[in-house]
Amino acid sequence: MTKNAPRNQPLSGMVTPRFAGMSTFMRLPHVPIDEACDIDVALIGVPWDGGTTNRPGPRHGPRQMRDQSCMIREYHHALGISPFRLVNCADLGDAPVNPANLMDALERIGGYFEKVKAAGMVPLSAGGDHLVSLPILRALGADEPVGMVHFDAHGDTWDSYFGDNKFTHGTPFRRAIEEGILDPGRTVQIGIRGSLYGPEDKQWALDQGIRVMEIEECVDLGPDAVAAEARRVAGDGATYVSFDIDCLDPAFAPGTGTPEIGGFTSREAQMMVRGLRGLNIIGADVVEVSPPFDPGGGTALAGVTMMFELLCLIAERLADAR
Amino acid sequence: MTKNAPRNQPLSGMVTPRFAGMSTFMRLPHVPIDEACDIDVALIGVPWDGGTTNRPGPRHGPRQMRDQSCMIREYHHALGISPFRLVNCADLGDAPVNPANLMDALERIGGYFEKVKAAGMVPLSAGGDHLVSLPILRALGADEPVGMVHFDAHGDTWDSYFGDNKFTHGTPFRRAIEEGILDPGRTVQIGIRGSLYGPEDKQWALDQGIRVMEIEECVDLGPDAVAAEARRVAGDGATYVSFDIDCLDPAFAPGTGTPEIGGFTSREAQMMVRGLRGLNIIGADVVEVSPPFDPGGGTALAGVTMMFELLCLIAERLADAR
Amino acid sequence: MTKNAPRNQPLSGMVTPRFAGMSTFMRLPHVPIDEACDIDVALIGVPWDGGTTNRPGPRHGPRQMRDQSCMIREYHHALGISPFRLVNCADLGDAPVNPANLMDALERIGGYFEKVKAAGMVPLSAGGDHLVSLPILRALGADEPVGMVHFDAHGDTWDSYFGDNKFTHGTPFRRAIEEGILDPGRTVQIGIRGSLYGPEDKQWALDQGIRVMEIEECVDLGPDAVAAEARRVAGDGATYVSFDIDCLDPAFAPGTGTPEIGGFTSREAQMMVRGLRGLNIIGADVVEVSPPFDPGGGTALAGVTMMFELLCLIAERLADAR
Amino acid sequence: MTKNAPRNQPLSGMVTPRFAGMSTFMRLPHVPIDEACDIDVALIGVPWDGGTTNRPGPRHGPRQMRDQSCMIREYHHALGISPFRLVNCADLGDAPVNPANLMDALERIGGYFEKVKAAGMVPLSAGGDHLVSLPILRALGADEPVGMVHFDAHGDTWDSYFGDNKFTHGTPFRRAIEEGILDPGRTVQIGIRGSLYGPEDKQWALDQGIRVMEIEECVDLGPDAVAAEARRVAGDGATYVSFDIDCLDPAFAPGTGTPEIGGFTSREAQMMVRGLRGLNIIGADVVEVSPPFDPGGGTALAGVTMMFELLCLIAERLADAR
Amino acid sequence: MTKNAPRNQPLSGMVTPRFAGMSTFMRLPHVPIDEACDIDVALIGVPWDGGTTNRPGPRHGPRQMRDQSCMIREYHHALGISPFRLVNCADLGDAPVNPANLMDALERIGGYFEKVKAAGMVPLSAGGDHLVSLPILRALGADEPVGMVHFDAHGDTWDSYFGDNKFTHGTPFRRAIEEGILDPGRTVQIGIRGSLYGPEDKQWALDQGIRVMEIEECVDLGPDAVAAEARRVAGDGATYVSFDIDCLDPAFAPGTGTPEIGGFTSREAQMMVRGLRGLNIIGADVVEVSPPFDPGGGTALAGVTMMFELLCLIAERLADAR
Amino acid sequence: MTKNAPRNQPLSGMVTPRFAGMSTFMRLPHVPIDEACDIDVALIGVPWDGGTTNRPGPRHGPRQMRDQSCMIREYHHALGISPFRLVNCADLGDAPVNPANLMDALERIGGYFEKVKAAGMVPLSAGGDHLVSLPILRALGADEPVGMVHFDAHGDTWDSYFGDNKFTHGTPFRRAIEEGILDPGRTVQIGIRGSLYGPEDKQWALDQGIRVMEIEECVDLGPDAVAAEARRVAGDGATYVSFDIDCLDPAFAPGTGTPEIGGFTSREAQMMVRGLRGLNIIGADVVEVSPPFDPGGGTALAGVTMMFELLCLIAERLADAR
Repeated sequence: MTKNAPRNQPLSGMVTPRFAGMSTFMRLPHVPIDEACDIDVALIGVPWDGGTTNRPGPRHGPRQMRDQSCMIREYHHALGISPFRLVNCADLGDAPVNPANLMDALERIGGYFEKVKAAGMVPLSAGGDHLVSLPILRALGADEPVGMVHFDAHGDTWDSYFGDNKFTHGTPFRRAIEEGILDPGRTVQIGIRGSLYGPEDKQWALDQGIRVMEIEECVDLGPDAVAAEARRVAGDGATYVSFDIDCLDPAFAPGTGTPEIGGFTSREAQMMVRGLRGLNIIGADVVEVSPPFDPGGGTALAGVTMMFELLCLIAERLADAR
Repeated sequence: MTKNAPRNQPLSGMVTPRFAGMSTFMRLPHVPIDEACDIDVALIGVPWDGGTTNRPGPRHGPRQMRDQSCMIREYHHALGISPFRLVNCADLGDAPVNPANLMDALERIGGYFEKVKAAGMVPLSAGGDHLVSLPILRALGADEPVGMVHFDAHGDTWDSYFGDNKFTHGTPFRRAIEEGILDPGRTVQIGIRGSLYGPEDKQWALDQGIRVMEIEECVDLGPDAVAAEARRVAGDGATYVSFDIDCLDPAFAPGTGTPEIGGFTSREAQMMVRGLRGLNIIGADVVEVSPPFDPGGGTALAGVTMMFELLCLIAERLADAR
Repeated sequence: MTKNAPRNQPLSGMVTPRFAGMSTFMRLPHVPIDEACDIDVALIGVPWDGGTTNRPGPRHGPRQMRDQSCMIREYHHALGISPFRLVNCADLGDAPVNPANLMDALERIGGYFEKVKAAGMVPLSAGGDHLVSLPILRALGADEPVGMVHFDAHGDTWDSYFGDNKFTHGTPFRRAIEEGILDPGRTVQIGIRGSLYGPEDKQWALDQGIRVMEIEECVDLGPDAVAAEARRVAGDGATYVSFDIDCLDPAFAPGTGTPEIGGFTSREAQMMVRGLRGLNIIGADVVEVSPPFDPGGGTALAGVTMMFELLCLIAERLADAR
Repeated sequence: MTKNAPRNQPLSGMVTPRFAGMSTFMRLPHVPIDEACDIDVALIGVPWDGGTTNRPGPRHGPRQMRDQSCMIREYHHALGISPFRLVNCADLGDAPVNPANLMDALERIGGYFEKVKAAGMVPLSAGGDHLVSLPILRALGADEPVGMVHFDAHGDTWDSYFGDNKFTHGTPFRRAIEEGILDPGRTVQIGIRGSLYGPEDKQWALDQGIRVMEIEECVDLGPDAVAAEARRVAGDGATYVSFDIDCLDPAFAPGTGTPEIGGFTSREAQMMVRGLRGLNIIGADVVEVSPPFDPGGGTALAGVTMMFELLCLIAERLADAR
Repeated sequence: MTKNAPRNQPLSGMVTPRFAGMSTFMRLPHVPIDEACDIDVALIGVPWDGGTTNRPGPRHGPRQMRDQSCMIREYHHALGISPFRLVNCADLGDAPVNPANLMDALERIGGYFEKVKAAGMVPLSAGGDHLVSLPILRALGADEPVGMVHFDAHGDTWDSYFGDNKFTHGTPFRRAIEEGILDPGRTVQIGIRGSLYGPEDKQWALDQGIRVMEIEECVDLGPDAVAAEARRVAGDGATYVSFDIDCLDPAFAPGTGTPEIGGFTSREAQMMVRGLRGLNIIGADVVEVSPPFDPGGGTALAGVTMMFELLCLIAERLADAR
Repeated sequence: MTKNAPRNQPLSGMVTPRFAGMSTFMRLPHVPIDEACDIDVALIGVPWDGGTTNRPGPRHGPRQMRDQSCMIREYHHALGISPFRLVNCADLGDAPVNPANLMDALERIGGYFEKVKAAGMVPLSAGGDHLVSLPILRALGADEPVGMVHFDAHGDTWDSYFGDNKFTHGTPFRRAIEEGILDPGRTVQIGIRGSLYGPEDKQWALDQGIRVMEIEECVDLGPDAVAAEARRVAGDGATYVSFDIDCLDPAFAPGTGTPEIGGFTSREAQMMVRGLRGLNIIGADVVEVSPPFDPGGGTALAGVTMMFELLCLIAERLADAR
């Protein structure tokens, strides 16, 4: 940790009320990527849902998540971490997308995250649908495959959709494994549930060596043991954390496209994420927040609070590594 | 289980997207009762709330539940059951009702379910308010009284309302016991809670020998033990399962007429229902979903997912019995 | 008009309450295209919004429009027309779509409407976003270009979007004119308004000879004169009517993706459409109803009521032509 | 007008903020009928919707209308009338109802309004569905049939519903004419529209001599001429005014059970009601406000503002008659 | 307990349906303070949110809470207490407030509660934002400092806001301790969580000797042990219970201004409050219900149900003390 | 107009989709006031509602209005004006406020607008409640009183509230006239309606020489004549335009604190504002948009579209004056 506080600090609620001021992630300064220097953690929106097969809307996620993030203060009451005191953070704005061309969108997003990585920033992203994780992983896993802690109701390792469409929000992690950017042996999926097309839906993941923790196992073990298992699977290597908001029960996150009842409470999610403390997180995302299905913004508030939980872990690890 | 798959299969999400196609329960073919043959399990709407004493709306339940049921896929991830592979299912459409005449409505509904029973179909119904269970029980319990596993915040064994009105959604099970179609000694009520008019409200049920499990006891025991107790009470005989959506906490099911805080999570409900595996279920319903109080449909989604849980149990039992 | 009533009649509200029964357009029988014979007018859903560039959702339009259409009765109070007495109508269900592949979706929809046309049915469609009009026109205008009465806030004759994407819900009618399936000289656009990218946005349409009636002119003239002008432009030839729900003011139709204030009241829209009486309408659609932005369904009710207005005109013309 | 101000005055917004205090109609004192003396105009809730055939909810109308009525101040800006200075008003509370027995409910309501009439109070009621007008008319028209100015999208003169159910919210005025309590020759219906079951739906009303002004005629004439025609039809005799909120367009009153697009704006409604100034109004109601379909309360605000418009006319007439 | 039932009884749902009648707390008679005599427990609204720093709205809380309280019946199913049989209760209406002058509002509210105390009534209040607890404590703690059981996501012991503003909904309990009306050594805070401005935010409270139970500790201990600890801290002395609705998770109470995810379920809250049985409660409040953020009223229902839980404890203690 | 386009241009929807990118007014660059140079028109948020007496919320207005303003394109279809081509515009962010101290807030806002004026920028503001117009006028009218075109349901010239509170959103223009910063003889109020406390409410304004056009006169005259009268009253001098969103009917703008039925349509409002073309507008605001009462944002969309209408007039006038 540097002696002086990092340059970028959230706008103080004691000077500018929380409902005032430009809407940025956690009231941080907005620093476009071309002006970014010495940023440690970059908060980035990826407003794109071109991979959505049923109920659309996550393209609007980053805006609502920025709005709700004004509720976040600076210090984590339970972890005792002040991330903005440890590392220099910024809202980098939104990654470039293409709402009319899926393959081009993947290119643009991927290229952008390559720049983020090249600049030495750890990306903490707000989706977008879950397909946005793929181009991010392409950037982060380009040199060697990363491990992943994956919170979700769905495994997202289907092969294709509606014929031969290989790129949807149900397929990113099969693609990532096929492309060699994600290490299935260091990947754990947490909270999987809901009806499936058939038993084969989960077999592929198991065959690759992914550690699949269905919700029933998670409930039996409890949050602490789930987190311990996740740390065991991910090990010490570079690890990505992907948090699909639909891992939460629809009572806690109604604003999403593929809700499945019987999910986590937000408290359980917080406890599991906190249990990842110390993990070597080289990037993370919170995806599938769909504002049209929750105009009041409670889902987005849950999403950005989880981003804050992740930010604390990332900041502490970076500070410790100095 | 027959060698070949049953005739009726849900519309595939890989051919027709889940948001497309006619709205039927779980994307099954709609087969009117007069055309029904070799149907094992009949999914039926009962769009009627003539027994409602406070906030109306469940008459609109079946339509919203059909809409939301397009989210259900074919295979149960935890039970490992593919109900549509085991038995032939269909959406029979809605039972006939009369919104302007309570006694005639009970006649019509009852007569319809007699035909369902005569055709050898197990009915899985979507209400409607809880009074619809009475005419269904009249059909199913005509020969001998059935047992019942009853999930609810309220016992629904009041005697009358507003003078001498004997038929409301608060009285079906007192009537059923009086009529000799429901066996109180094989009946268990799960999740009872909320303020009462007085201590006598629950005494009648206890006097009949109903096993009343208030929410506090359920929480103490946990879902598995609750299910075990329910199986013990119901025994091996023919058993009806009635699932009032208000057994769930209003956070999980706001769209209902008589919400009581402090209820079950949807996960607890799923665990309890799964614990009924093996029970001799000869019919079931999910009632009191009231769309005007939850236009977004989360309550209906919870309701139809519980229908799917029940369908898996029914299908397995039927297949095992062949 | 035939002596006997047409075969298909809406489910009577005196036998099955309007909130009951399977959800079909105007409570008509559902007749899949392969079973359709002697259908005069086919009501069809096109649940697809792959051309949407901003706020998505019209893929869910047909389902909500079917739900709301249960409010429609059989006789038009002002026109004195009973369409279901004049012609045989049916709900054909939804056209096939592909949510993951735009070009394939256009193929599927187009092929379907070719079959509709080949079977001699007049299609009355519920979108979907406005790009669905293109494959419909490809079918209907295959032999010779059709005229069009086009109600909309936007001209939808932009050239491309986001680079070279030629097929969006902002481009269908430029494509249709380029493809020679729409006759610009017999096309009138009614209600155009809202900010534009620049003055050139409307120049292309004018250059093709489209009669563009901006909202200001429409208000000055009044509904009757607008309709008269539309009839003059369309003339006696085969004419398509495309009704984008965003021609209505957002107060009347909030559930749409690109609302523009200052639009028509629903009354003005009804008066203009009624003023088209006698036009040679060979097909029509109501598009851009987006349920996620109006869960209560008021926008869908406006949409299906406009479908009923159009149905009356189509039925009368068909009956007169016999 | 008495020299002193009437006893009952609305709670002042300068002492108790409009969001504070007990919820009564227009912040008037609540005076139960048994304590009522020297009340000139009685504001009364009739929380009952037992006559509703489709979407229920008006039973909740009076409560939401009381809540919204806190927005009403004391002086009519355009008419220049201060009703609470002219006559003594009170919120009498709710009429007794029976939610479980239609015929008993009609008895209770009717009996209550007989007491209101006997006490010399002019009732200004908030429904409830439109069937509540029947028992009110039974009280007010007991001695001789009254005339009526009836704002509505529907004529409500159907004969029966679902077999032989003679008492629904679609039949009150046929019953009232049959019972000789409503004079069809002095009755005018304003704003009628929407699809019908058939042409015969409106014939009965015409045959009785009711003056039916469909919305199209109303629009052609304009509000002033409509009001003049209404005054002409009603003449000098005792006249009831019944305002069904669905006479308004659903954009202005979404919270109702049978919305029909193409209705009046609230401004047109205000202008028509004001045009009734001087009419011998012996009672009035605003019905069919259904809170579950408009939780925000805009419909109820429109309803209570129309009650205030009516109150001004009633108060002025009473004061003039002294 | 007196031989006869207390004078004031809730309106019976068997005579007046729960949706009917004037809106009062728990359907009790409304008794203005100047007419109050022999009232044991006074239910009071405090419609004021002048201390709110972010999202406003609790000024509307009492009205919505009264509306929702019609769902409460008379007998507690688990505690076996009929509070209205034990003590005489009334809805005293709303305390006087001043929406335009903070210091005057505190004066008015404080003065009102002095009268309540002087009349020997135990106040059970519905806020309002949390600053309303301060003037209430000024009345109740005037003679000697009271203890407090405080359910909340936030400690509300900040010093000032936006410069030197000492009176906001984040500061009431620091002021109360400074003023010597609250005994920090007998104060326990339960459910504290959410991000903070810094570690010093909670230090002041600890330094005063407040027992701070963060949500994590509460979850570890479970509701029964939390309640036991609260009873231990509060001891036998006069104790106030303040229940901020945001102690509940936003899934259970979305209608509040400062939601923090990871909160209590309503069931946990009920269990903890019930665990306070026997405590010497001399007043209680439920605050921060903000209707504009939950028009459907689920949050208010949770709030008034907690008021009923508290009422049972207060009534039993008062009856036992006779 | 300069030869080259102004420096600041809105983000193009062809490069960054309208749902993406940082949320600023009309997708303009955010330029803090201390970095502003050569800005002609400054779009400014004033997130403050400390003057609100009934339903709060406009403090959240600027954020929602920025969000919705992404729908605005660059060219006015009817006026033929491209404001961003004529003058250099920027989003200056939010004025400083104080949510906890009314007088300090007025100071801060006033001081900020003095800087805006000193920098030669024309301010176009988004409130906030209507009291924010007062400190803006203090800056703009400091040298000589300005004229005003005031669209509103309420005159906002009350004297005080709740005793002697002189500064509320109902009093700004009485204060402004008393302070000599607003010229009543050059002030016109348009759309005034709704019940009043008494006839004296409007007398003060008339006595000062304000031209009050109640809604009834506006409807009789029509938008063009209203605008002509407004131009006549305001004359050639420096004129402020204040647009209270509640001048619109609640159907068009439900998200506001003091709705009054019978208001303008958005089309009428657009026509009136366009009729002000050529007026010497030295500042303008759109106030009283209250997001909690319209989470969907339709009211905010109406508000920002009116800002665009005003911007076109301001830009043209500035360009002409060069």
